[in-house]
Amino acid sequence: MALHQWIPSIKEAFLSLQAYLCQELALEEDQATFKADKWSRPNPEEGGGITNICSGGLTIEKAGVNFSHIAGQGLPETATRRHPHLIGARFEVLGISSVVHPKNPYAPTTHANVRFFCAQPAVKGAIPVWWFGGGFDLTPYYPFEEDCLAWHKAAYAVCKPFGESIYPSFKAWCDDYFYLPHRQEPRGIGGLFFDDLNEASHWPFDKAFDFVCQVGKTFIEAYRPILAKRKCMPYGEREALFQEIRRGRYVEFNLLQDRGTLFGLQSKGRTESILMSLPPRVRWAYDWQPEANSKEAELTEKFLVKRDWI
Amino acid sequence: MALHQWIPSIKEAFLSLQAYLCQELALEEDQATFKADKWSRPNPEEGGGITNICSGGLTIEKAGVNFSHIAGQGLPETATRRHPHLIGARFEVLGISSVVHPKNPYAPTTHANVRFFCAQPAVKGAIPVWWFGGGFDLTPYYPFEEDCLAWHKAAYAVCKPFGESIYPSFKAWCDDYFYLPHRQEPRGIGGLFFDDLNEASHWPFDKAFDFVCQVGKTFIEAYRPILAKRKCMPYGEREALFQEIRRGRYVEFNLLQDRGTLFGLQSKGRTESILMSLPPRVRWAYDWQPEANSKEAELTEKFLVKRDWI
Repeated sequence: MALHQWIPSIKEAFLSLQAYLCQELALEEDQATFKADKWSRPNPEEGGGITNICSGGLTIEKAGVNFSHIAGQGLPETATRRHPHLIGARFEVLGISSVVHPKNPYAPTTHANVRFFCAQPAVKGAIPVWWFGGGFDLTPYYPFEEDCLAWHKAAYAVCKPFGESIYPSFKAWCDDYFYLPHRQEPRGIGGLFFDDLNEASHWPFDKAFDFVCQVGKTFIEAYRPILAKRKCMPYGEREALFQEIRRGRYVEFNLLQDRGTLFGLQSKGRTESILMSLPPRVRWAYDWQPEANSKEAELTEKFLVKRDWI
Repeated sequence: MALHQWIPSIKEAFLSLQAYLCQELALEEDQATFKADKWSRPNPEEGGGITNICSGGLTIEKAGVNFSHIAGQGLPETATRRHPHLIGARFEVLGISSVVHPKNPYAPTTHANVRFFCAQPAVKGAIPVWWFGGGFDLTPYYPFEEDCLAWHKAAYAVCKPFGESIYPSFKAWCDDYFYLPHRQEPRGIGGLFFDDLNEASHWPFDKAFDFVCQVGKTFIEAYRPILAKRKCMPYGEREALFQEIRRGRYVEFNLLQDRGTLFGLQSKGRTESILMSLPPRVRWAYDWQPEANSKEAELTEKFLVKRDWI
């Protein structure tokens, strides 16, 4: 039996979000299509998922929209930062995780995630603890001011009905989270990041559920126009090389820093579904530096800095 | 003042090993040359190093031979597995770390490392604790039985004068260390790995110092003939693609598992010198599987398994 009465509704909403994200992305892609890969954990009682993958397209070099619904004993430490009493508890997690790596270096990479955690404290009669988390962020190679503004305006707009303090708070959380300390550099231009939404943080269930569903839809509605505008821009070897080098930073973040990736691998999740987030072509060159005053230098100097976009 | 009277001798030996490794590798490369990049930490009293890099060659797509000599307060936990009382101690570390990524997919990637740690326990009058570590391993894409045998025979030969139990012990340690749990797969066909060589483990200073110097030389003397034999083999897109995909595993190991990499990044080491180990071109493809009975399937089925090579 599900740990929480609302799990069937969340599952339905997340599966419908997965279908919507794939459908919207497919509208920008004329060659490749999404293929669904249904999987279950070695012990099927511990759940499984559906990984939708599109690769080798004209627009989309690689994109994944992953749904997973996992249950188990022993919630790992990475998931219980604010709930240390839940380490080792029986738990159930549902999530959608989506990453898009477009082929054109002028089109940014993007990522979104919504998730629901539920855990049963090992105290007789205790009711399950639940929380929502999620967010979305944008990682441009050759950034455009107007795209970044539109991205953050969409983030602001989805937060506004939930309170004026939500956007600044979740925007700052995103800046803190998507940061590579060894590069002293953010992963991209940010967006929203949030975790632990529940009654204790003034997010009753209905409000939190509504918010994460809207965040999921806003993500693709904000990303599609950017992708549409940039996917056919002419580019050459120089831009493709820079894209590959910057994608190296994306790999470094995901494998060194990302709690979701490390949680997945440490909890013996399905490796291919977790690492679908990694870019297709990547390059590392020793101490690569952009030319002074170049478009490539502009990325780090003007965009990968703390900025107020609203 | 150096923490240990032998540090100048070790420094001299390691710098001479660095020169020897570069010289031997350069003999297999007709186009690119090694360039030395001397660096120091933001606080020069905390040391620095010399990173020698060769890239874009006909044989060597990317190779690095890094010398570093670091001092500081606060030995990180990753370095003190067997010496928990030394966490936070004043320390001094010297090391050579070398990685070669050949261009030809028939030539294996290789890695070697020798290191000397010295730490001052925070107890008045205590003498410094020291230990040597190191090893070398081979990561083929298209493996040849004869190359793997020669590699392990060289490993066996360098260990033999130090005792019959040394090779089996350090070979097993290597198999354990270079393992990707999330892939349930070793990184390559192994070689030698050792740590904590000092009096307590029956390695008096002179013997341990002699051993690591010999390991460093054996590494390149075993690798050069393999590189020479494979560097001109004809190959096509199929082999290049497989090489890129397998290199993805190399990145996963280095960023998820490798204690040296994580120790370096966590102790705010020089990022470019630490990450010089990452391959130049890399690729991730969702759930990529080799064809049944192919050369690509042979790698995982016949070579990336626990084997006794002697």
